[in-house]
Amino acid sequence: MNKLITIIPVSSFNNSKTRLSPFLTEDERKQLLQSMLKDIVEGIKEEVSEIIIISKDPEVLSYAKTLEISTLLEEKHERDHLNNAIIDAIKYVKENYEDAKILILPSDIPLIEKKNIDYLENNNNDFIISPSKGGGTNLLYINNQYDYKPLFGEFSFFKHVTEAKNKKMNINIYDSFYVSIDINTPQDLGELLLHGTHTNTYNYLSSLNIVVENKHGQERLNVYRKDE
Amino acid sequence: MNKLITIIPVSSFNNSKTRLSPFLTEDERKQLLQSMLKDIVEGIKEEVSEIIIISKDPEVLSYAKTLEISTLLEEKHERDHLNNAIIDAIKYVKENYEDAKILILPSDIPLIEKKNIDYLENNNNDFIISPSKGGGTNLLYINNQYDYKPLFGEFSFFKHVTEAKNKKMNINIYDSFYVSIDINTPQDLGELLLHGTHTNTYNYLSSLNIVVENKHGQERLNVYRKDE
Repeated sequence: MNKLITIIPVSSFNNSKTRLSPFLTEDERKQLLQSMLKDIVEGIKEEVSEIIIISKDPEVLSYAKTLEISTLLEEKHERDHLNNAIIDAIKYVKENYEDAKILILPSDIPLIEKKNIDYLENNNNDFIISPSKGGGTNLLYINNQYDYKPLFGEFSFFKHVTEAKNKKMNINIYDSFYVSIDINTPQDLGELLLHGTHTNTYNYLSSLNIVVENKHGQERLNVYRKDE
Repeated sequence: MNKLITIIPVSSFNNSKTRLSPFLTEDERKQLLQSMLKDIVEGIKEEVSEIIIISKDPEVLSYAKTLEISTLLEEKHERDHLNNAIIDAIKYVKENYEDAKILILPSDIPLIEKKNIDYLENNNNDFIISPSKGGGTNLLYINNQYDYKPLFGEFSFFKHVTEAKNKKMNINIYDSFYVSIDINTPQDLGELLLHGTHTNTYNYLSSLNIVVENKHGQERLNVYRKDE
């Protein structure tokens, strides 16, 4: 079977996840990001041939090395940093592996696990995609069609499907709740606290005394810090 | 193959979906509920043997008849109306069908479709459950173990799994994003507008000029009424 190479772009540990500020301090958000990356790597590493983190932040690359995964230094791009970083990473895979299949994942989906990767291997598609909440893309699998153009950003799920149709790819929409949970808001932390009790991210949030309870209002979950 | 009977409890058309008020008027919320029920019925009717709506609201039961599905008048219960209504419906199924399998669905998951039901039939489990956002349960399948006790309410997903473990049932957690989308808040309407362009509910919301756009803030989606 051809290799499955996972690409995880990470912008930077600092100034990230700003929608969780002031709920979490900057240092806490950085530790949250590290916990989530660790969960993703532990969740999928047995099932994929290699994991490559691409980032312009030396601290991210150093942290990736502690997880014993590969790193790529992101080149400077004038604009559309995320998609250009992914294009560079796809080029790197094309040049270094023969006919590898590519999986692109965001760095904030700590509930992804072994069985999600098994699904990709068990389905013989050119293109597999999973939605995130809010119209985004949380999993993008390309079976060696390296000219596929990543279009991450606003409502990317639909743009990605259209691009795959334009390329005449055989499309599979992988309908997964756990993959859809990316962590950007206190509500998302609540979902993680409910469904991710096995994760490093859960342990980290618990160490901050962050808990979740049911709420009857516009938001479903009340996520707050307990007094010690 | 044994029959698969679907039970959909509906409390009432009036005074429901209050988290969507004042975004939608009471009459609009009632029409939204009708659209969602129609989507569920159209989405699954070919795949199940029968669909039974249980409600105490005569208007709900009349509407169900226009969809050509079965109805049960909900008995009065002092407390825990929802779970007691479901217990009554399970009893009805037990008395009227031999060894039927039971599927319990909420009335507000218009993105459910044929393939979700196919999944149940293709997996030979005693118990299949799907999470909703916020720790709830959006799909509960019981393979003729009629003493299973429904525990809908706060964080019911986890209570339901525990109950199935206690009953020594063979458990399958069915990880579905589309099943997880129940419609309670404007954010949920946004998800429906994005992913449900094929639904009656989408057409109804569009007739009200309700649209969705991307948002960068605590909420992912901005859902609003366009000026005509």
